[in-house]
Amino acid sequence: MTTLDDLLTPRSVALVGASDDPTRIGGRPLAFFKNLGYEGKIFPVNPNRDKVQGIDAYPSLADINDEIDFVLVAVPAKGVLDVMRQAIDKRAKTVMIFSSGFGEMSDEGQVMQDELSRLSRESGVRVIGPNCLGVFNSAINFYPTFTSTIERRQPNPGGLAIASQSGAYGSHIFYLADQRGIDMTYWITTGNECDVHVAEAIKLLAEKEDVHAICAYAESIKDGDMLVEGLEIARANRKPVVLMKVGRSAVGAEAASSHTASLAGDDKVYDAVLKQAGCYRANTTEEALDICYAARPRIYPAGRRIGLVTVSGGGGVLMADAAEDHGLDVAAMPADAQAIMKELVPFAAARNPVDVTAQFFNDMTLVPKFTKLMLEQGNYDALIGFWTSVAGSPRISPHLRAGLTEAMQGHDRKLFIQSLIAPPEICKEYEDDGFPCFEDPSRAVATMAALMHFGIAFDQGRAPTPDVPKLPALPDGGLGEKQAKAILADFGLPMVQDVLATTAQGAVAAAANDGGPVALKIASADILHKTEVGGVELGVSGDADVSASFERIMANAAKGAPNANIDGVIVSPMVADGIDCILGSKLDPVFGPIVMFGLGGIFTEIMGDVSLRRAPISEATALEMIDELKGRALFEGARGAKPIDKTMIAKAISQLSVFAAAHADTAESIEMNPLRVLDDRCIALDALIVKKGAEEH
Amino acid sequence: MTTLDDLLTPRSVALVGASDDPTRIGGRPLAFFKNLGYEGKIFPVNPNRDKVQGIDAYPSLADINDEIDFVLVAVPAKGVLDVMRQAIDKRAKTVMIFSSGFGEMSDEGQVMQDELSRLSRESGVRVIGPNCLGVFNSAINFYPTFTSTIERRQPNPGGLAIASQSGAYGSHIFYLADQRGIDMTYWITTGNECDVHVAEAIKLLAEKEDVHAICAYAESIKDGDMLVEGLEIARANRKPVVLMKVGRSAVGAEAASSHTASLAGDDKVYDAVLKQAGCYRANTTEEALDICYAARPRIYPAGRRIGLVTVSGGGGVLMADAAEDHGLDVAAMPADAQAIMKELVPFAAARNPVDVTAQFFNDMTLVPKFTKLMLEQGNYDALIGFWTSVAGSPRISPHLRAGLTEAMQGHDRKLFIQSLIAPPEICKEYEDDGFPCFEDPSRAVATMAALMHFGIAFDQGRAPTPDVPKLPALPDGGLGEKQAKAILADFGLPMVQDVLATTAQGAVAAAANDGGPVALKIASADILHKTEVGGVELGVSGDADVSASFERIMANAAKGAPNANIDGVIVSPMVADGIDCILGSKLDPVFGPIVMFGLGGIFTEIMGDVSLRRAPISEATALEMIDELKGRALFEGARGAKPIDKTMIAKAISQLSVFAAAHADTAESIEMNPLRVLDDRCIALDALIVKKGAEEH
Repeated sequence: MTTLDDLLTPRSVALVGASDDPTRIGGRPLAFFKNLGYEGKIFPVNPNRDKVQGIDAYPSLADINDEIDFVLVAVPAKGVLDVMRQAIDKRAKTVMIFSSGFGEMSDEGQVMQDELSRLSRESGVRVIGPNCLGVFNSAINFYPTFTSTIERRQPNPGGLAIASQSGAYGSHIFYLADQRGIDMTYWITTGNECDVHVAEAIKLLAEKEDVHAICAYAESIKDGDMLVEGLEIARANRKPVVLMKVGRSAVGAEAASSHTASLAGDDKVYDAVLKQAGCYRANTTEEALDICYAARPRIYPAGRRIGLVTVSGGGGVLMADAAEDHGLDVAAMPADAQAIMKELVPFAAARNPVDVTAQFFNDMTLVPKFTKLMLEQGNYDALIGFWTSVAGSPRISPHLRAGLTEAMQGHDRKLFIQSLIAPPEICKEYEDDGFPCFEDPSRAVATMAALMHFGIAFDQGRAPTPDVPKLPALPDGGLGEKQAKAILADFGLPMVQDVLATTAQGAVAAAANDGGPVALKIASADILHKTEVGGVELGVSGDADVSASFERIMANAAKGAPNANIDGVIVSPMVADGIDCILGSKLDPVFGPIVMFGLGGIFTEIMGDVSLRRAPISEATALEMIDELKGRALFEGARGAKPIDKTMIAKAISQLSVFAAAHADTAESIEMNPLRVLDDRCIALDALIVKKGAEEH
Repeated sequence: MTTLDDLLTPRSVALVGASDDPTRIGGRPLAFFKNLGYEGKIFPVNPNRDKVQGIDAYPSLADINDEIDFVLVAVPAKGVLDVMRQAIDKRAKTVMIFSSGFGEMSDEGQVMQDELSRLSRESGVRVIGPNCLGVFNSAINFYPTFTSTIERRQPNPGGLAIASQSGAYGSHIFYLADQRGIDMTYWITTGNECDVHVAEAIKLLAEKEDVHAICAYAESIKDGDMLVEGLEIARANRKPVVLMKVGRSAVGAEAASSHTASLAGDDKVYDAVLKQAGCYRANTTEEALDICYAARPRIYPAGRRIGLVTVSGGGGVLMADAAEDHGLDVAAMPADAQAIMKELVPFAAARNPVDVTAQFFNDMTLVPKFTKLMLEQGNYDALIGFWTSVAGSPRISPHLRAGLTEAMQGHDRKLFIQSLIAPPEICKEYEDDGFPCFEDPSRAVATMAALMHFGIAFDQGRAPTPDVPKLPALPDGGLGEKQAKAILADFGLPMVQDVLATTAQGAVAAAANDGGPVALKIASADILHKTEVGGVELGVSGDADVSASFERIMANAAKGAPNANIDGVIVSPMVADGIDCILGSKLDPVFGPIVMFGLGGIFTEIMGDVSLRRAPISEATALEMIDELKGRALFEGARGAKPIDKTMIAKAISQLSVFAAAHADTAESIEMNPLRVLDDRCIALDALIVKKGAEEH
């Protein structure tokens, strides 16, 4: 098993394609090794020179009579495979390739890249790149990168780690993080990812003790399972992972795929799976770095109950709006604590937001009094204070800090973010006291919401999942409605009871057996859109009508789908009105089987009101899925309806997720649509299983 | 008519309650007048001193033997009315009141505040406050405010103006704006708004030539008509108004109303009306100031077509995602222009985002070549460039600026925002060349979207509205369904034809006349929820069934609503299936009649997918309303349906809006629900008019 140390803490490094010019790709990292204090052995490789930048050079890797941990490759693409083979011979641990001209460029390049992957897999030598900008480990001053950003800014070792598929954007993030005073030890860019990819980088960083928070950027994920594993390790170790998975939009996805030549995957699936694994998906760099910055005290509140304290009524209203936007609970202070506040400052608003008015700055003893009351009696998981520019004054700030620090005694699990305007040196004093600072109160609230997300996710831990049994393989060939229904019903999923009639008499008998009016539907694995060929009739009753309906459907099908294999007509009871839902699963190219639940057609298709999870999931997780829907109100008695027991739906969702996981190798998609939800039960009226490689007709 | 000069450019100022202590409320403004260069006459009023801060003082306003334009009041609340009466006697133009203890405090305070309003109205003396933090006009160094913020930062005169109900938050905004280098001449805080309110401040600023952009903060709007008027004046003068209307959330609204003791109004109505008047509603201070900052070149792009150019593929993807989030059109470059780019830089991505790669910095002649191609051949309304920290280097930036400036020649209407990391002095050089700078590319995109909003709103101008005729008054008393339908049908709204039957025979006759199956509904102004009392039966046919249905409904109503006045039973034809919509109007406490359109019950009630506009509106505006709905897909042929001519719906919406506007004095709400939309027509199946002051039964 590779560790982060294997990749980023080498005792020796060879630079193939070393250059005398410290501004060139092959020269810059050498200059960094020399000038920034890397203490390992350095072997420049250049067949044309004895020395490069004053260091003894070697004609080839083979000529180096020493162990080499890390090989850095800065030669044109056509020479890279050769260097890779030499590195394998030298038993290097890691080969990192700056060179471009691989998969991102041409089919020929992809062939070379695939060969690199094969060599890596077979030899066990790990490869970073090709077409990457490098990595760093600032704890040992190891900067094998050609970004000029290092010349403008050199990082301080610290708990943040950055993993980025994009080199230039990775540099951008690093630069901004450092500018905000966030210290970081590890930085990894993965480029074309012929071996090491962002998902593995996250996993390695999550395992490493001196990493406290991970900021990652990815345009595509090569290995969904490893990403989830990495995220769950991070969760177990209480390390926040903030991931910018870009390409959310159609144009963005297209630009990303042309940029990295990889499949985008369904963006909504990313959203769901990342959340499921406790990760926070950031849409902007600023948001991502706000979270990394505020994570420095390593305090992740236990819930979403937020206390807001302000010296400006306006600031309080603004924060309350933002808190509700982010789903936080702006709960009121208890009445008796409010009364104490009113006694201290009659003009104060004591509910929450607590507006202490400018009186706060006139009498600094009020600071610990008010905030202590909020922490101890308000039962908040965290506080945000809005103090505007007054808190930045050198006269006021020491007193404010002292008061806030006094109030925080004994509340180790609680975080107190300060929104204020202050010069950097005064901000730093607040930060050193454990208070992250934000100029903009709305950003303070958004960031707090993210930290609360982590606190809750860490406390919950990985969600238990049901066991996936080994099930008999699906039958060969396409599956018709009747077959799909039978297979799902056999597995215990709630399915309407119906009869396959091959004659009009059979249909009449089935209908008579059922008693009430029936639905008749053409049965054929070859006809997926039954209504379009006139293959569905509903609410039919009476022998004559049932018989006529059977004949009509068979005739329509023969005409509308002349080449279809017809099994007959399915006769099923009409089910009372209820709430029509869709329950299904889909095989995602990145994350495998994804279970999906939503309300009837229009809600799912037009409103996009649908919940997704990586299968399999428990009933508890399925309940969360239901509660995520806007349309859940329908189950909760909206519009005068009776509230419905959601656990019966959750049971079906969980069960389908297990079925989908068990058939992940062969079932491309499964759909129970509609799943009709009645007062006391839910039942699927139709079902579909599409097998991998099957085409829709 | 009051002008901004009347309020903010006085030739003389009296300060009642003047203090010798320059840190006190009555002392600080005097110190500002003295020390910051105000050149008008200054009259401190203090009965206990001959001089205040070295200036001759007067026992009262009456003792000043000179004209006084502006009276500043800093005495306790109980003395304020007296000062107001003296100011009226002295024919002051403006009285500004710092004092608190009015409506925000107690009922007694509200009585005093109402008296201030009355005195102002009757005398014509304008009042700012009470409970306000002051105003300023930096062009004449006039700082009648007690905020200590002025001691930390003194503004430079310039095109931005700020109007804020909240004093402390107004100071906060001013401080941040100044910190970002945005120059501003006018700053107004309105406090309790007993006379001058934020809406009027916006109007006065919009009228004033040296104001180029307005940033406003409000917790409530006192006069919706004046706000719309002010916004339309700003639009006509091509001045952006960025409004933070806070209290969006339930907790926020409650905090705001306890803060300013005013009604919140429906937040969705604010959203709709502000947009309708060309205003941009910002949710955060940062967003608001980003827009004010980027508005400095006063360039508002003509459309939403955006060109993105980047040196990092990642940055391009990120900007494309953000652009799609904000509804911008990331249109592709023409193929021939792409070919030219590929010739210049073979590795470049030439579609859009255009990724010029790091090659850009190696050959700076590429800068004007690429950006010129985008401006001239891409037909974009605006560009955003992502250059990360490289563009901030003193070596690179002069060349980059020169290249960008060269490309922009002849494109005066286009804006080019630069996303880069640079020290302030280098940023300023870009800004001086007309390029707003943003570190975060997503914020650059969001800001561009806002400027495009303004460009389009300015070009469109005020939307024409239909004339509102004088209509006969609505009948006295509550209106039943039958009456409501008749009145709306008379006005030309599409309404189902029905008959009021008072006997079973009458119902049978009406049904027979109609031919097909009918719906029967109880007719009573006292029963608004007909289904609940068993007052509705649908799809009834045949004489016997119609007769039985009539009797059943009458019996149910007699039992379920024994005190109701029953008119009979309405017999109406069943209308074919279609798309059920809701068309209605509601009287908003701030903005008057608001027309509302959405899809059937669940969409409107649960999904909140509904469009609103201030009535009356034209058919063109009504079409925009329809197109705003997510559910519009249903009209456009979603799920295999036939596309529907939306103009027939728009006609009904516009017509109802005119009706609502004509009855704004008496009709509290009007509802046509469902409005059933069929292939060739739309028709309301039910209607309701609730009059002002009527209670639901």
